Amino acid sequence: MSNTIGNIFKITSFGESHGAGVGVIIDGCPAGIEIDETFIQSELDRRKPGQSRITTQRKEADGFEFFSGVFEGKSTGAPITILIKNQDQKSKDYDHIKDVYRPSHADFTYQEKYGIRDYRGGGRSSARITAGWVAAGAIAKLMLRQLKIACQAYVSQVGELQLSKSYKELDLSQTESNDVRCPDTEMAKEMFELIDQVRKERDTIGGVVTGVISNVPVGLGEPLFDKLNAAIGHAMLSINAVKGFELGSGFEGVKMRGSTHNDSIENNDGRIHTTTNHSGGVQGGISNGEDIYFNVAFKPVATIMQDQSSIDKEGNAATVQGKGRHDPCVVPRAVPIVEAMSAIVMADFSLLAQTNKLRG
Amino acid sequence: MSNTIGNIFKITSFGESHGAGVGVIIDGCPAGIEIDETFIQSELDRRKPGQSRITTQRKEADGFEFFSGVFEGKSTGAPITILIKNQDQKSKDYDHIKDVYRPSHADFTYQEKYGIRDYRGGGRSSARITAGWVAAGAIAKLMLRQLKIACQAYVSQVGELQLSKSYKELDLSQTESNDVRCPDTEMAKEMFELIDQVRKERDTIGGVVTGVISNVPVGLGEPLFDKLNAAIGHAMLSINAVKGFELGSGFEGVKMRGSTHNDSIENNDGRIHTTTNHSGGVQGGISNGEDIYFNVAFKPVATIMQDQSSIDKEGNAATVQGKGRHDPCVVPRAVPIVEAMSAIVMADFSLLAQTNKLRG
Amino acid sequence: MSNTIGNIFKITSFGESHGAGVGVIIDGCPAGIEIDETFIQSELDRRKPGQSRITTQRKEADGFEFFSGVFEGKSTGAPITILIKNQDQKSKDYDHIKDVYRPSHADFTYQEKYGIRDYRGGGRSSARITAGWVAAGAIAKLMLRQLKIACQAYVSQVGELQLSKSYKELDLSQTESNDVRCPDTEMAKEMFELIDQVRKERDTIGGVVTGVISNVPVGLGEPLFDKLNAAIGHAMLSINAVKGFELGSGFEGVKMRGSTHNDSIENNDGRIHTTTNHSGGVQGGISNGEDIYFNVAFKPVATIMQDQSSIDKEGNAATVQGKGRHDPCVVPRAVPIVEAMSAIVMADFSLLAQTNKLRG
Amino acid sequence: MSNTIGNIFKITSFGESHGAGVGVIIDGCPAGIEIDETFIQSELDRRKPGQSRITTQRKEADGFEFFSGVFEGKSTGAPITILIKNQDQKSKDYDHIKDVYRPSHADFTYQEKYGIRDYRGGGRSSARITAGWVAAGAIAKLMLRQLKIACQAYVSQVGELQLSKSYKELDLSQTESNDVRCPDTEMAKEMFELIDQVRKERDTIGGVVTGVISNVPVGLGEPLFDKLNAAIGHAMLSINAVKGFELGSGFEGVKMRGSTHNDSIENNDGRIHTTTNHSGGVQGGISNGEDIYFNVAFKPVATIMQDQSSIDKEGNAATVQGKGRHDPCVVPRAVPIVEAMSAIVMADFSLLAQTNKLRG
Repeated sequence: MSNTIGNIFKITSFGESHGAGVGVIIDGCPAGIEIDETFIQSELDRRKPGQSRITTQRKEADGFEFFSGVFEGKSTGAPITILIKNQDQKSKDYDHIKDVYRPSHADFTYQEKYGIRDYRGGGRSSARITAGWVAAGAIAKLMLRQLKIACQAYVSQVGELQLSKSYKELDLSQTESNDVRCPDTEMAKEMFELIDQVRKERDTIGGVVTGVISNVPVGLGEPLFDKLNAAIGHAMLSINAVKGFELGSGFEGVKMRGSTHNDSIENNDGRIHTTTNHSGGVQGGISNGEDIYFNVAFKPVATIMQDQSSIDKEGNAATVQGKGRHDPCVVPRAVPIVEAMSAIVMADFSLLAQTNKLRG
Repeated sequence: MSNTIGNIFKITSFGESHGAGVGVIIDGCPAGIEIDETFIQSELDRRKPGQSRITTQRKEADGFEFFSGVFEGKSTGAPITILIKNQDQKSKDYDHIKDVYRPSHADFTYQEKYGIRDYRGGGRSSARITAGWVAAGAIAKLMLRQLKIACQAYVSQVGELQLSKSYKELDLSQTESNDVRCPDTEMAKEMFELIDQVRKERDTIGGVVTGVISNVPVGLGEPLFDKLNAAIGHAMLSINAVKGFELGSGFEGVKMRGSTHNDSIENNDGRIHTTTNHSGGVQGGISNGEDIYFNVAFKPVATIMQDQSSIDKEGNAATVQGKGRHDPCVVPRAVPIVEAMSAIVMADFSLLAQTNKLRG
Repeated sequence: MSNTIGNIFKITSFGESHGAGVGVIIDGCPAGIEIDETFIQSELDRRKPGQSRITTQRKEADGFEFFSGVFEGKSTGAPITILIKNQDQKSKDYDHIKDVYRPSHADFTYQEKYGIRDYRGGGRSSARITAGWVAAGAIAKLMLRQLKIACQAYVSQVGELQLSKSYKELDLSQTESNDVRCPDTEMAKEMFELIDQVRKERDTIGGVVTGVISNVPVGLGEPLFDKLNAAIGHAMLSINAVKGFELGSGFEGVKMRGSTHNDSIENNDGRIHTTTNHSGGVQGGISNGEDIYFNVAFKPVATIMQDQSSIDKEGNAATVQGKGRHDPCVVPRAVPIVEAMSAIVMADFSLLAQTNKLRG
Repeated sequence: MSNTIGNIFKITSFGESHGAGVGVIIDGCPAGIEIDETFIQSELDRRKPGQSRITTQRKEADGFEFFSGVFEGKSTGAPITILIKNQDQKSKDYDHIKDVYRPSHADFTYQEKYGIRDYRGGGRSSARITAGWVAAGAIAKLMLRQLKIACQAYVSQVGELQLSKSYKELDLSQTESNDVRCPDTEMAKEMFELIDQVRKERDTIGGVVTGVISNVPVGLGEPLFDKLNAAIGHAMLSINAVKGFELGSGFEGVKMRGSTHNDSIENNDGRIHTTTNHSGGVQGGISNGEDIYFNVAFKPVATIMQDQSSIDKEGNAATVQGKGRHDPCVVPRAVPIVEAMSAIVMADFSLLAQTNKLRG
């Protein structure tokens, strides 16, 4: 396994869904960052289960504790260890999947790769792991605050319901005003209804989360193989259930002509910027100072409340029962995860960029 | 900069468009791989300029030489260095962009980040760099041959012209039968006409390359942060002009219900496989033995044969002249690049997977 | 900071002397290793304080708990997190060093580098951190057992008292028979007396630990920059208070002629080996199948029970008081640490070597 | 293999003794460093063969060329590729070792590990490889000049002849005044005579190179596992024929009492420094502003002009003939290599330290 991501600001993830807990280590966080525990908890609360009718009804407080690296309220440069203990861990709820592979889950691949697997609630492959990532992302955000860089995200699509407005036409401060986390409150209602309908049908549905990073300085990104867009994409594709990533004009941009797609550069009273932003804030793998925006596609949650045909460990046909407490659509709770992972990348590349020039 | 990618099978890229040449080092290639030079050259020929009316008319033979690591026709375990010297390097062709930033190129961002830039033909940010990647990819393919893993790619979209057939319905052996590298020869003709029309309009257009990796063993991929899909995505997003990546059902999959999207598992006379493959061959970040397929979105080439408004190094308004020899659409020549980068990832993860179990 | 070591079998260290505790994550441990908790505790017991009159009188049980990665008594391939909570943490014992820099400690350098430091008991720079390393080393040893590789160490020098016998002339099974951990029981007594005398003088003294790795297969080590000897040296030089490392003939070998130093190769009934072993089991950075042996020099412990002159945080002259509970000589407790770090390197390079050849 | 070292300022080594040449890539060198080619050549000249009667009589000019990364005399941030082509490559000189393993060389271990080896002149395991390192070190020195950090080295021991003076008592400007590279000219003569005597005896002898790094800022080094001393040690142990490394008081320090060994801290008119420097300029893995000094032990060169008994590839007893042109003692030519490797580490850690604090 490879449970670390980052170059300077590095996070290492650990834990399982139904073991002692999940957690994260942040190594390379600069010393002296004020660690606002209330903020960290508020970020975890955005991700936790049981927030509304359209999220899983599991009840987990997702309280956290620092095990190391914070002294008198500040980072010390030492690795910051955060533990989030498991509470609502009903292992026996998972006896029915002990010996059978759930379709489109990681049961089969983990078992084949490792020859053993902690089957309880998905074990290491559970999305519960992302609680640690959100905690690490909160610390990244605290660091980025000092650089004025903001990482936001919102739901832009659920099933066929797709926002036609771009992030520029939306009021992102409304994202938290509804359970779907879509800043267009009209669309949010429709999305809520759709998810609730899907839930009643004991089914699930996919969606898209859009990320927006603003106030980005020019010069972040390390071409050729740590282009900023590649690093953000890598981080997003690490999130459970993600099947696609596009930045700037993305897949729609392929239909355009260069003469339209190119972003003209102008000097606006000393601030150099582009008149359009099809590039999505990155050119040649390096930030150009414009907003970075991107879409992340989440497939429908694999756990459905219906019986499905599969096989057991011995290779015999078997039925996977649909039970437990699960999300009918993952994107509302994925919003803070997308923000966290983008903040972790931005923190890392902000520090990396400090090495681009020699400081005497 | 960060010019190395990979964990075990690692490539390091170097060189500039109009310096002495470009090249690549492959470190971690197992010893004893037969190095078929004819094959490597044939792969380079697929990427080289001047292949047809719809690619750039620059003439570069892209001949290569080994500088190290190959002895008596085989890899020795030592780093393999490949040099591809520049020949058709008319530096003075680029005097017109010495002091002006081309829109949607990396001129501005490189200059700001580094305070200096080799402006000739894009220098380090030129797509010419990918010649080295294709050479490295050829060696990865030679290694993967022993594992029977095949990495293929083809053009599936140019502008609005999009293949409706999936890779399963196509005869991929036809990909090289036409200049567009689309295996559907009817569609290839249409695409050719479109690109040629765009060329005559002195403009450019985007496209999509689809990659297919077949005969993949179960168990490749290192969750959480080196999931196979994330590693492939990272590699694709490292290619010049790429704005999007999706694997399996991708962005279309978000519209589906879980009950439809889930890939049922069955035992087909001892071979465990899934009846559908919306997962795209990866579950929980680990290959499940099904074909891996993905789409890569390329924006329209930024260099157009039209004048554009921009600024110069001093921040004054300036016009970028449209001249030189460039591709009206990058995807035909991007096909071998996509294949190469996917082969490099697969070689790396095949070796990494050899560490998953202890061998006594 | 950089708190991770290793390529495949990687450990990440965290924690502080007087915070919640110390710990370690092992990422990349193969799945299916039986985790013998009794053995891990016995290794920790060899390192823990308070073992005899000549070690610090602090009482710490150094009990550990798994937080992740172990399921039904086996490793699962997931990161193994081990927590060792602090118990005997009298923070106020350290108020006297809050604002003053102890000579030859890391107080000044941490304060200057990070601008903040957890001063309690040395915080992050405390040797207490190595408890986590010993736990990780125990797991490495459990893995290496399957390969029959053994990592041993013993005290070969305290002050001027130096063993004249090589490891081959000693019975290493006697190492644990005395408090000094010197397998020559006569010398052990002398060393004990010396350390005890130094202790009574409220002073400290240095020493040497010799490591021996036996039953090593041919082929471990990744030249050029991950030579096996360099990796072992790196690991040893990471241990607190280490000032020197030599492998094989080491510093004495420089006095020899090549004709004497060279290790002749012979075929002993099918087993190829060398008649002498001045190389210390490594040639060209790669193990040659002979025993690996090396010496590690530990300086005298910096904390002495005497007053010393120094400065405070404001730069004023200040006296550091000699108080607390500390080791008069670190080498007896360093033996398990040297073993642990060598086991971690050997586990890592055993797995890395599994990538040297392609397995079809 | 693993042919890259460094975190930010990274070098990748490639090439073989009797292939096309050797070389190096420097990735992560900051942009804007003036590349003084004359200086680079002068450093290579210090390492090249044929400098005097006591070095190998091979004649290699070791001329170099830039293949990438330098534009208009400056680094651009792109990878700098340096090629040093082989000239005096008489491959047939090595036919006698094609099938036989030279004692204490890497022939056997390379063959066993890789199943194939470029036997000509040692191939990849030849010390010729270090020419590339010296070139990279020259660029590191050019960068360090701007920080005023100086990396020097000299021969302090040949066989039993050991300098009793510390580096502080020597005039290091005299190092280049003699062929041995010992700054004590009296001792240099004795050493020269000894080496020349050994040469006439067709034998070889070992030695020690002492490195001194001066004007080091406080705060370089990344504990726990990238302590500055561990990184320097790792780099030194990567050099061919090195068997030992000690920093500061080293192995002698183990004999001292803490009360003597500890370096008292004082404030000397605003400059905080230590009255002694047994620590060797590093405390807790971090530089404290004092000089860093260390010893590197080189074993006697394995190639001797005498016949030796060994085995051939089939395991039969065989005689290795003593012929060719080799160094009777490696340390005079190792001085620039030690300097180069220490400069590479210092350049890397200087850049890494730029990430310790957040810069708004």
